[in-house]
Amino acid sequence: MKIDAYFTATEVDPASLVSATVVVIDVLRATTTIVEALANGARGIYPTGGTEEAVKLAHSLGREDTLLCGERKGQKVEGFDLGNSPSEFTRETVEDVRLVMSTTNGTRAFIIAQDAPRVLACAFTNLGAVAAAVAEEEELVVICAGRQDRFSIEDALCAGHLIERVVSESAGERALNDAALAARLLASARKPSRKLFLQTAGGRALAEIGLEGDLDICADVDRHDVVAEMEDQVITLAGA
Amino acid sequence: MKIDAYFTATEVDPASLVSATVVVIDVLRATTTIVEALANGARGIYPTGGTEEAVKLAHSLGREDTLLCGERKGQKVEGFDLGNSPSEFTRETVEDVRLVMSTTNGTRAFIIAQDAPRVLACAFTNLGAVAAAVAEEEELVVICAGRQDRFSIEDALCAGHLIERVVSESAGERALNDAALAARLLASARKPSRKLFLQTAGGRALAEIGLEGDLDICADVDRHDVVAEMEDQVITLAGA
Repeated sequence: MKIDAYFTATEVDPASLVSATVVVIDVLRATTTIVEALANGARGIYPTGGTEEAVKLAHSLGREDTLLCGERKGQKVEGFDLGNSPSEFTRETVEDVRLVMSTTNGTRAFIIAQDAPRVLACAFTNLGAVAAAVAEEEELVVICAGRQDRFSIEDALCAGHLIERVVSESAGERALNDAALAARLLASARKPSRKLFLQTAGGRALAEIGLEGDLDICADVDRHDVVAEMEDQVITLAGA
Repeated sequence: MKIDAYFTATEVDPASLVSATVVVIDVLRATTTIVEALANGARGIYPTGGTEEAVKLAHSLGREDTLLCGERKGQKVEGFDLGNSPSEFTRETVEDVRLVMSTTNGTRAFIIAQDAPRVLACAFTNLGAVAAAVAEEEELVVICAGRQDRFSIEDALCAGHLIERVVSESAGERALNDAALAARLLASARKPSRKLFLQTAGGRALAEIGLEGDLDICADVDRHDVVAEMEDQVITLAGA
């Protein structure tokens, strides 16, 4: 099994993904929110780039059962239905609706991964489910969304815990790239927690705008037993 | 004290360096070789981009006391005097000569850093000297050269051990960015060694071309008590 991790999406050569299963991680908060929404019954999530594109897509899908969600600088985009706090994505709000999602960091990683044969969304909240789903793959690529195209510790840590579980659940030889090795070392040193996240740039930025509470959900390992898979640019529950 | 680390030179915004002391790290092998050369009496090192530019510069400096050194894919450039193995840079070879150096990864990091008020070259071989030299700075930026614009574990590990020493030698508040935090965690988990380097992409590539022996020098912590400083695009012994 070959496992390559990338700490920023810009380090990824999309051509290297043609035969790989790709896992996208954006702990604070895109993939945590995606997992929360799907676990609570959302029909599908459409990651998009700009807010204008998101509005256009929501209208073409049918505004009656589509919610617009996303953030800029952590805050809900004006005129959107929801921001990017996982706690907003309750069953009452998202069951059986489509979500068009525009976020700062997470979306780019999904766009880079879109031509890979299999693309999953991973957060601490669905770590075990993702690890089990990819344990038999020959070629795994883990893309950390990072923060403004830079390294973010929470994504690297999540990658490390994922790789640790995958390695413990799979047999045979493994070849890890430098970032995958480093991520495993980070995972051996730290578990996710609100306290740790408050030391990171992403966590501090959320706390500054009053969203520190989000960090507890984002650190809640195995909160949901769901696998979120992207196909034709829509993320849905795998096997649903 | 503010300490920001970057795991690739592409993550650095040069404008953020205007008031910072910058430390450039390329363990395999540019900064290790630079430290070795200066410790063995080289007059100065001129990092350059392409090989043609290097040849031109060597001629303009005066070929009688200038050596051309550098690698492509780890191997000595054809027609150059030296490659990029630290063991080539003995006192017999480099004392009192100028070195024009063209390398794949290290050079770019120096070019990005060139407008900072103070730029040092760091490897494991001069770790303690660099830590002591920057311990009183208010703003420290550590740039890992990485490998082909991607994360490399040996550079991140060196950054982590440097930051660890700086933090232990300096007093007062510290603010570390995510990469600096992660580098410290890596340093708490691993020391440099030939064995560890052989698990990295850079180390394996050297072993494949018969240069595994270089890894011992590259992992030799505090081999030299020298500080290498770049000024006007030339790297010399600080205080010499």
